[in-house]
Amino acid sequence: MSAGKAVIGQSGGPTAVINRSLVGFIKEGLKDNFDEILGARHGLEGMLSEDFVDLASLSESQLYGIGKTPAAALGSVRKKPTEGDIEKLISIFEKQNIRNFYYIGGNDSAETAHLIKEGAESANYDMKAFHIPKTVDNDLLETDHCPGYGSAARFVAHGFQGDDADTRSLKGIKINILMGRHAGWLTAASTLGKSTEEDGPHLVYVPEKTFNLESFVKEVKEVYESLGRCLVAVSEGVHDDKGEYFLQTYANNAGSGLAGKKDSHGNIQLSGSGALGDTLANIISENIESARVRADTFGYLQRSFLADISEVDADEAERVGQHAVVASKTENSGSIILKRQLSDKYYCEVGLVELEKVAKNTKVMPKDFLDENKPYVTNEFFEYAMPLTGGIEPKTQIFV
Amino acid sequence: MSAGKAVIGQSGGPTAVINRSLVGFIKEGLKDNFDEILGARHGLEGMLSEDFVDLASLSESQLYGIGKTPAAALGSVRKKPTEGDIEKLISIFEKQNIRNFYYIGGNDSAETAHLIKEGAESANYDMKAFHIPKTVDNDLLETDHCPGYGSAARFVAHGFQGDDADTRSLKGIKINILMGRHAGWLTAASTLGKSTEEDGPHLVYVPEKTFNLESFVKEVKEVYESLGRCLVAVSEGVHDDKGEYFLQTYANNAGSGLAGKKDSHGNIQLSGSGALGDTLANIISENIESARVRADTFGYLQRSFLADISEVDADEAERVGQHAVVASKTENSGSIILKRQLSDKYYCEVGLVELEKVAKNTKVMPKDFLDENKPYVTNEFFEYAMPLTGGIEPKTQIFV
Repeated sequence: MSAGKAVIGQSGGPTAVINRSLVGFIKEGLKDNFDEILGARHGLEGMLSEDFVDLASLSESQLYGIGKTPAAALGSVRKKPTEGDIEKLISIFEKQNIRNFYYIGGNDSAETAHLIKEGAESANYDMKAFHIPKTVDNDLLETDHCPGYGSAARFVAHGFQGDDADTRSLKGIKINILMGRHAGWLTAASTLGKSTEEDGPHLVYVPEKTFNLESFVKEVKEVYESLGRCLVAVSEGVHDDKGEYFLQTYANNAGSGLAGKKDSHGNIQLSGSGALGDTLANIISENIESARVRADTFGYLQRSFLADISEVDADEAERVGQHAVVASKTENSGSIILKRQLSDKYYCEVGLVELEKVAKNTKVMPKDFLDENKPYVTNEFFEYAMPLTGGIEPKTQIFV
Repeated sequence: MSAGKAVIGQSGGPTAVINRSLVGFIKEGLKDNFDEILGARHGLEGMLSEDFVDLASLSESQLYGIGKTPAAALGSVRKKPTEGDIEKLISIFEKQNIRNFYYIGGNDSAETAHLIKEGAESANYDMKAFHIPKTVDNDLLETDHCPGYGSAARFVAHGFQGDDADTRSLKGIKINILMGRHAGWLTAASTLGKSTEEDGPHLVYVPEKTFNLESFVKEVKEVYESLGRCLVAVSEGVHDDKGEYFLQTYANNAGSGLAGKKDSHGNIQLSGSGALGDTLANIISENIESARVRADTFGYLQRSFLADISEVDADEAERVGQHAVVASKTENSGSIILKRQLSDKYYCEVGLVELEKVAKNTKVMPKDFLDENKPYVTNEFFEYAMPLTGGIEPKTQIFV
């Protein structure tokens, strides 16, 4: 362990258990000989403006409370540091004698930790830099899965169980839009509460496959004609074969009449908007006469709902935070990962890989998790994802 | 108790605990001397087509499972019976010797029970008719509150607690749209998880007050300028001083360019669509420069989420179902109500009122539950609503 202070920040979209990683880090950090444990408000932003919180002085009950709060307790930020930022950061770290840098976030945060490590090296400043993984999108390389995903997946699975019952009660077509721009992990989690094939969702559209509007309409129609209802899970990131988001392509073709929020460049906003669901529902309405069609966008509830956390996920989130301190005793840098053990009972060990291996890139769903012939997942996905949610109790069958 | 069979149906929008009322009814019914206990699939629709389920043969574990399932286990329907329907129903009841009619639903269901009671009387058919209340909208007259509301309110309060943490993490303006076309009960529930005035939601727009777009923009701007963030709860039913829904008026003025789904008459669809949130977010974006603006529509999750039920609500739902059987031993018709007792600890007795008193009408929020001077609720609302949710644990304050 270097002498000096430690600083930690949180970055990117919040999760329901990201603060458990913070708490795991603080608890382990308190056992150690850091001069101080600083929390930076709003990640890099707070580091650049020296807006720090003293984390070593928190009481046990404060730590417990923070661990139970969703979203980033220190505040988050979406910021890619410039070269100038890195230089400024290193000089601030030097001035404050901060020798240990920890960043909780996704692949951008791993990249930030990597840039800081490199910046420190070229300034000949002795400093350690670690990335602690989190993202509801579950799209980081190297780790078995990402803390935050299990709880979001649990919320989505429970949401679909309820919505399946709802769609049986008042029959119709229901389209739900899920988070995950580049990977379908959360969209696929919609299936985890199913007991039978007749339970919804019946169709699952992920960004790993090209989205074709004609096939979509045809597939929804087929289920609806066979069951009298159809529950559909669609990723916000569905796109055409050129990789252009469906909603963007559609907006370009439809002109100004389209639902949705566009920025000054005409780019469509994917999250925090109901536009994709509404657009798909309108198209289905036009193509399937007299069907009752509804759309919901699960939105930020997926990543911040505090009353339905996966305990497995919360526990792992705490352990990756803790392990960042443990790893920094012997290593200079790296990204914390979870490694699934081959055993009857699900268990993940924590481990460490090089920052470069996690930075920037995205892990999409592997081919064997997706059905080859229809928009759906496989049993392999089910077995992979179910333990992360803490287990989803099957829903009782109802009479309709 | 009349001899003969009993029939029960479920009607209108599902809730998370409506099946607890069904289970309460069946359990009490089994103690009684009904010849049979029939469940009608999809309410009136199943009664008219004699599509019945034998409810007396269900096992204890099946009943337990059904009670834990959200939405209508028998299937629901939105149907106002015609005079012809009523005549047909009475003749079916007569043929089957159904002497006891029970209908779980909102004010339309109370009206249906009333029409059936009248139809039986004019046909000189000896028959009892009862209404069992449910609605997440909490807008029935006479009863202190409606089963289903407490669980939906709990979901909304927890959703806002998470979203408040999220909006602190990544600062901006967040608009959430809640259910309740005519009354603001669910929208008001967004406040129940607040610990301090600085917690969101900061502004609450209900249909009990006229919605003025200019004031809305001004009020959001004020909060945003003061706190650097603003969390807003808006009812789907906000309307102008003529009672026209905001979204409808806006669509009429904006022409074809508006987000949202319209039917063939040009009427805008309020639920199962993100249009209201998106429209308001667009307007705020245009008026508050450089603010990060997002909107979510909580949608059907509010009424069907099975993993965050209010136990108080579930218990009361079971008791109103049970009481319908008890009441029919001595009375010929009526609507079951909950009567809050004056005591230190929250408790509601069950009771009975005439069907006409509940049929058709809507109970909006009383004046003393709404702040006179700003778009917000009062402590009186807080004290009324909190016990129904089973209690919302305060969220820990975070550092931003």
